[in-house]
Amino acid sequence: MNMSFLQELFSNITQREALLRRRTGNGLTVDHSHLLEACRALLESDGEASSITHASHALEIYSRLDDNSKTRFFERLGKDFSADPREIDLAYAAYRKDRENTALQRLFDACEPRRQELLRRLNLTAGGTYELVRMREDLLRLMRDHKDFAAINADFTHLFASWFNRGFLVVKRIDWNTPAAILERIIRYEAVHKIRDWGDLRRRLDNRDRRCYAFFHPAIGDEPLIFVEVALTRGLPDQIQPILDTESYDIEDPEAADTAAFFGISNCQVGLRGISFGNFLIKQVVQELKQELPNLKNFVTLSPMPGFRKWLESTYLDEQVALDPEALATLKQLENPDWLQDPELSERLNAVIRPLAARYLLKEKNRDGQPLNPVARFHLGNGAELHRINWQGDISAQGLQQSTGLMINYLYVLDNIERNHEQYITDHTIVCSSSVRDLSRRGRKLFKGETGK
Amino acid sequence: MNMSFLQELFSNITQREALLRRRTGNGLTVDHSHLLEACRALLESDGEASSITHASHALEIYSRLDDNSKTRFFERLGKDFSADPREIDLAYAAYRKDRENTALQRLFDACEPRRQELLRRLNLTAGGTYELVRMREDLLRLMRDHKDFAAINADFTHLFASWFNRGFLVVKRIDWNTPAAILERIIRYEAVHKIRDWGDLRRRLDNRDRRCYAFFHPAIGDEPLIFVEVALTRGLPDQIQPILDTESYDIEDPEAADTAAFFGISNCQVGLRGISFGNFLIKQVVQELKQELPNLKNFVTLSPMPGFRKWLESTYLDEQVALDPEALATLKQLENPDWLQDPELSERLNAVIRPLAARYLLKEKNRDGQPLNPVARFHLGNGAELHRINWQGDISAQGLQQSTGLMINYLYVLDNIERNHEQYITDHTIVCSSSVRDLSRRGRKLFKGETGK
Amino acid sequence: MNMSFLQELFSNITQREALLRRRTGNGLTVDHSHLLEACRALLESDGEASSITHASHALEIYSRLDDNSKTRFFERLGKDFSADPREIDLAYAAYRKDRENTALQRLFDACEPRRQELLRRLNLTAGGTYELVRMREDLLRLMRDHKDFAAINADFTHLFASWFNRGFLVVKRIDWNTPAAILERIIRYEAVHKIRDWGDLRRRLDNRDRRCYAFFHPAIGDEPLIFVEVALTRGLPDQIQPILDTESYDIEDPEAADTAAFFGISNCQVGLRGISFGNFLIKQVVQELKQELPNLKNFVTLSPMPGFRKWLESTYLDEQVALDPEALATLKQLENPDWLQDPELSERLNAVIRPLAARYLLKEKNRDGQPLNPVARFHLGNGAELHRINWQGDISAQGLQQSTGLMINYLYVLDNIERNHEQYITDHTIVCSSSVRDLSRRGRKLFKGETGK
Amino acid sequence: MNMSFLQELFSNITQREALLRRRTGNGLTVDHSHLLEACRALLESDGEASSITHASHALEIYSRLDDNSKTRFFERLGKDFSADPREIDLAYAAYRKDRENTALQRLFDACEPRRQELLRRLNLTAGGTYELVRMREDLLRLMRDHKDFAAINADFTHLFASWFNRGFLVVKRIDWNTPAAILERIIRYEAVHKIRDWGDLRRRLDNRDRRCYAFFHPAIGDEPLIFVEVALTRGLPDQIQPILDTESYDIEDPEAADTAAFFGISNCQVGLRGISFGNFLIKQVVQELKQELPNLKNFVTLSPMPGFRKWLESTYLDEQVALDPEALATLKQLENPDWLQDPELSERLNAVIRPLAARYLLKEKNRDGQPLNPVARFHLGNGAELHRINWQGDISAQGLQQSTGLMINYLYVLDNIERNHEQYITDHTIVCSSSVRDLSRRGRKLFKGETGK
Repeated sequence: MNMSFLQELFSNITQREALLRRRTGNGLTVDHSHLLEACRALLESDGEASSITHASHALEIYSRLDDNSKTRFFERLGKDFSADPREIDLAYAAYRKDRENTALQRLFDACEPRRQELLRRLNLTAGGTYELVRMREDLLRLMRDHKDFAAINADFTHLFASWFNRGFLVVKRIDWNTPAAILERIIRYEAVHKIRDWGDLRRRLDNRDRRCYAFFHPAIGDEPLIFVEVALTRGLPDQIQPILDTESYDIEDPEAADTAAFFGISNCQVGLRGISFGNFLIKQVVQELKQELPNLKNFVTLSPMPGFRKWLESTYLDEQVALDPEALATLKQLENPDWLQDPELSERLNAVIRPLAARYLLKEKNRDGQPLNPVARFHLGNGAELHRINWQGDISAQGLQQSTGLMINYLYVLDNIERNHEQYITDHTIVCSSSVRDLSRRGRKLFKGETGK
Repeated sequence: MNMSFLQELFSNITQREALLRRRTGNGLTVDHSHLLEACRALLESDGEASSITHASHALEIYSRLDDNSKTRFFERLGKDFSADPREIDLAYAAYRKDRENTALQRLFDACEPRRQELLRRLNLTAGGTYELVRMREDLLRLMRDHKDFAAINADFTHLFASWFNRGFLVVKRIDWNTPAAILERIIRYEAVHKIRDWGDLRRRLDNRDRRCYAFFHPAIGDEPLIFVEVALTRGLPDQIQPILDTESYDIEDPEAADTAAFFGISNCQVGLRGISFGNFLIKQVVQELKQELPNLKNFVTLSPMPGFRKWLESTYLDEQVALDPEALATLKQLENPDWLQDPELSERLNAVIRPLAARYLLKEKNRDGQPLNPVARFHLGNGAELHRINWQGDISAQGLQQSTGLMINYLYVLDNIERNHEQYITDHTIVCSSSVRDLSRRGRKLFKGETGK
Repeated sequence: MNMSFLQELFSNITQREALLRRRTGNGLTVDHSHLLEACRALLESDGEASSITHASHALEIYSRLDDNSKTRFFERLGKDFSADPREIDLAYAAYRKDRENTALQRLFDACEPRRQELLRRLNLTAGGTYELVRMREDLLRLMRDHKDFAAINADFTHLFASWFNRGFLVVKRIDWNTPAAILERIIRYEAVHKIRDWGDLRRRLDNRDRRCYAFFHPAIGDEPLIFVEVALTRGLPDQIQPILDTESYDIEDPEAADTAAFFGISNCQVGLRGISFGNFLIKQVVQELKQELPNLKNFVTLSPMPGFRKWLESTYLDEQVALDPEALATLKQLENPDWLQDPELSERLNAVIRPLAARYLLKEKNRDGQPLNPVARFHLGNGAELHRINWQGDISAQGLQQSTGLMINYLYVLDNIERNHEQYITDHTIVCSSSVRDLSRRGRKLFKGETGK
Repeated sequence: MNMSFLQELFSNITQREALLRRRTGNGLTVDHSHLLEACRALLESDGEASSITHASHALEIYSRLDDNSKTRFFERLGKDFSADPREIDLAYAAYRKDRENTALQRLFDACEPRRQELLRRLNLTAGGTYELVRMREDLLRLMRDHKDFAAINADFTHLFASWFNRGFLVVKRIDWNTPAAILERIIRYEAVHKIRDWGDLRRRLDNRDRRCYAFFHPAIGDEPLIFVEVALTRGLPDQIQPILDTESYDIEDPEAADTAAFFGISNCQVGLRGISFGNFLIKQVVQELKQELPNLKNFVTLSPMPGFRKWLESTYLDEQVALDPEALATLKQLENPDWLQDPELSERLNAVIRPLAARYLLKEKNRDGQPLNPVARFHLGNGAELHRINWQGDISAQGLQQSTGLMINYLYVLDNIERNHEQYITDHTIVCSSSVRDLSRRGRKLFKGETGK
């Protein structure tokens, strides 16, 4: 039997865990100065034979530092592990003379902060990649109070972009046959609609009408990078609660589905923030689903609209200027805790809120000219179309609070993705359905004296 | 059963093969200008959504170019995909002013040749990494006549060092249960002692007294990067022929071995030249062997000494100055094709050649002050010790021709590796056994008026 | 990559699940007569090409029967699918004549109930083996009121003994990397110390100081047959509560353990009752543990003593004849719900109960002359030694109720297992420690006028 | 990573190999009497705990016996390990009285030769199943001179039918990613068109237009039981040489194929003769192919017709009675070694031989009324149709000698398989194409005064 082949493929991952475990807690107190010393030794080693030992030692020290020591370590890293100005000056002078590749290369090398070589060498250890991801997680947290750590962050970002190149990522189906050690992380990392317990998870992985896929990186082993949850349905879903319900089944056989609804996309590693995979994951999952279930016709999201209510309140309620008085009066009913139970009131709110949501998604832009809403930015940037705004799409406390219960369908029309994406990139054109456009027009009329943008 | 998990882990590798196969030969003639155009489109795309399509397209074109077009492509790559001098000047000016990290980072970014971003984007495609390795293989070949491609090579090297970081490599045991697709490559890539056929390979993988390990990279799938062949023996072996003999067995049970003899280390990917793994592989293999076979006491190589005979002839025979006339007369008998069959003559040659070999290994240095012999450089640099010089260690035609039949044992003494390595790094100190030192002293006396270095 | 090999190895198991799922509920009502008809068609088919279809059909009908129909099916199976008396008579007459092998074989074939061929053919379908195990589960349940089903049960037993031959079983380590689908079954089937939830399970599989192994059968896929839970400890454990405690750790590193304590052995498949694997599993697990952790010196159980309290009450309390009055008075204090909290009372109870437990284990026999206690029968029959009786070894409600809180250590001394086993088999000799023997002697004195058995 | 799960699944198989290897050759001479003694000890052991030791010991002795000792062992096995006549007489007497299930069961048990229990216990050891298959291989060989071993063979057959139940078999795709240890066996076991070397094998496993599938049994590990080779073609192939040609490709993309041509089915284990899997394998392979390649329309064999030329010569040439003189004269030209190179002669032979082949396949029957030709028997029995007789279908020396170069296409029409099979079983009706029927009619006219059967 050919087990040894695969077995050894993963043996080092297991070894890593062993190493990680052993390393912690051998007693001695350490602080950032020990770590800086270890980093210097690592950079001075010849870069190959003794590097692993030095690198392991450095990471071991790091793992035992408290936030204060970490902060001081990053401070020194920013200052002492930069590039050598004299080298740069000399290299630039030479470059100015001939403007040739060789001189450029020397200048490039001179400009590279020594931190980058340091990070590359720390990455030599088994398990090092993951520990560097965790280190950046610390860095991002501490950076809030230390804007000058941005340079260190740039070094991490530069290297992570290479190390987490999409060509190195592996997509894996997650289901009830996945090892518990991984499922446990899925529970932990689900960020959109919290997974309550293993029973909830089991429902979300039920082969009959659910799918889940994650990206993994071989050097990080069983830590997922990002995952997406899919419901197989008949028709486009307009509410999240039936999907999250652990008891009800829309279909019993995946072949009966015509729609794959992406209802949760969760990034797992804070330390990889800004290294984006979501776009690649969605595309690959669409491919896998099409292959497995040729009956699927629609690929759509059922997405939240975080920030909408806040925007609604700040923009319209506070200023009280622009909005039509009647609409405004209706909106204020949102503070009535019973509006959801009052069909008539609910209907009136619907008539005001959905048009405003359409305007929010289509017209409200950030400084780059892209939609203010981050979810819209993500899907529209991927080439999706703004398809439908669903009233009472998420009636959970969180759903009501974040987006007055609205949920959005973004549609991935396979033949149009490329074109939509290009248009969006070029001039931020948003492709949307006629129904959303109608809503938006109705929204315009809710303003006093509004003549349309 | 939990197959899907592993299955999907490798699914994209299979898909890659499919892609690679499909891509070739859709008929239209292409040249370097099409490729340059595709590269520009790739760099101009926003880097995410449409990149994979552009990158695949570019790689597909590349695969269909002839050497002439490749040369012209690399020429343009060197010139047109460099950095922007104006950007550099501006960034440098800003940097000069404050010497701060932010300015440095801008300068670093400005100096990075656009080629690097291009290569990163080409790497986005499934299978892209391997195709870039192959592209560098072309580059190294064409570079012989185009020294100016060195800048491009530097870009490749810079990125490969990140992508092929030791932390991403996976060591795997190769044996008779390994898939044939991989074994076939082992046969192809063995560079030290050619594998004649599958029967020869089978002998070399026999669990009873052989081991073989290779490094793999997850994004390259079943292409090995480097592998090492090990014979388990009783005592240190002094001849390669019994090891290569497919019929004879020194031991029948690996537990009976006290020695692991590394008799072949082969780099597989020309395109990864200069990205070194051998040192890491040897260390990891020593660990795996110790764990599997606690009885092992000696870790040693049985290594060739390529270039020795050439050195011998050029240095001593040609110049005819330094060498003792009697020794010289003996050496000339090497041209007698029957010396191997003549015990008495063979013994006389032994008395001259081994001492000279000891001097060759210990005293002949390259410009860096390291041993002239590349194999010695590799093992001594890894922390091994020069242990024994074996007369008639390799009596094959190649062995006789390259190194007058000598083979070398380099010994890896686990407790000394680190120290030996440090000494070697610091001042190129070579640790050697007393017997080799004695030989070297005898060698000195073979020179007329030699007073010793 | 060599995934296809393993992948296909399990593909049919996956297909089975699909098949099983599809099969249920196509609407039509069926009863035992349909099943009997399908069984006849199966037996009449030529046994190869069309068998699978017929067999699948029959199993599908069976899966939809209620208990009443199943009972009637088994009734007819007992009567109509027996052997042909005329064939038997003829074959016996021929056999009487020459007493040769050929005639014997004919007689043997004639005597084989047609049910056995029926079961063999039902087993042709993918997933059939498991469905037959489930069918026997039904049979055993219904047999309570239908003693005449014993003949059918004999046919199942005969075939299962072949199909579940130890040579076909595979032992697998169960840990936190095991697929959730299997872990879920471990939770469900644990019969000794109930697993409360996934958190409890996680603790029981913690690599640091726990191990778990199960037997699987390739044709049954991910349904475990039996599994054993092991705690790695320093010294022989005398209490179960610390082991079940999800928070406390006796050791942090498995290498630190000198003892492997088997604290739970659970049979999973009711339908395999009487087909014993436990003995094989324990032996194989001991081997695996010794290989992984050479420091282990003791292999011991921490076992319950179900039935002891019932025996105690029925034998001594009710008859009130034999027992010493003082001891009897003490024993009655067991009904005092607070005895556990009263150290003095507890100590007095200890002085009476442990000696009686020793006698119970050593002297109370069933009709076969083996220990009355089933757990003792199992371990002593496997070659273990009765080592220690632990006071307050299990102070859970169940532990107190079943065995007044006692837990037993049976010791597996590797060098003695074979000999102990042989002695036990020959004349039911029980090997026990001197401390247990002392207890037993003390127990004897608790009887009025007892002079020893 | 979830490797341990699969890893352990196969660990015992590896252990088996180790065991098997160690066992051989510990020096002492053994003969059948030692083996008989070991078998008695095994049967007398209580059947569980000590059985494995006894069974391993017995198999170890067996492996060291020569044919003479084996013969004597089987002789005693036939005589001394039969059933007890007194038991049988008593059980039969009891059975006669009440004819009930309980009595029947006792009689059945009494009739079972003790050999069967012996074989079941030998099967307890790891690797035992395979050693028993090898033992039966010996038995079948020695049986040629010892017809009385038939009883022992019947015991093996009875148990093998249970152990190798189709439900336990696993189909696996064999390709270039299969471990070499398995491919080596494919080379060894190919019985229809010999595989010359690894290059030949590689061609036969080329994903582009070849498939290969094998049945495995979990307890036998990597020993295939039977395998089938498939060529993907456009149209039904009529010649084997282009398929065996390692250089030529009919198609480059499996999706382009409309036909799956089974050109080799090889049983691997002589010791499993009579335990048939071929029928199941073909059906499962058809399913797998349809799923992978929905474009496939035809499932057909390209089969040899072993025995045809012998039949031709013995029947027509020797008797010289029935055949038309002209046809006879033509047939005699077969002895002309150059007929293949002579187009005109070849054409004349074609006109005689193919019609006779049609008659041979359709009209020549064995004692059971089935086709004389074993390959025809197999495929027609499986529900295939006799589709085409190909002139110069196999012009290898063997093809010419066995069947005058003819090759047969048996067609598996999915919708008709079941019906064809039933008809064949009922009255040996052969379904054939109109072209074959025409040939057969023409064949009739080749006889003097033939008026048709």
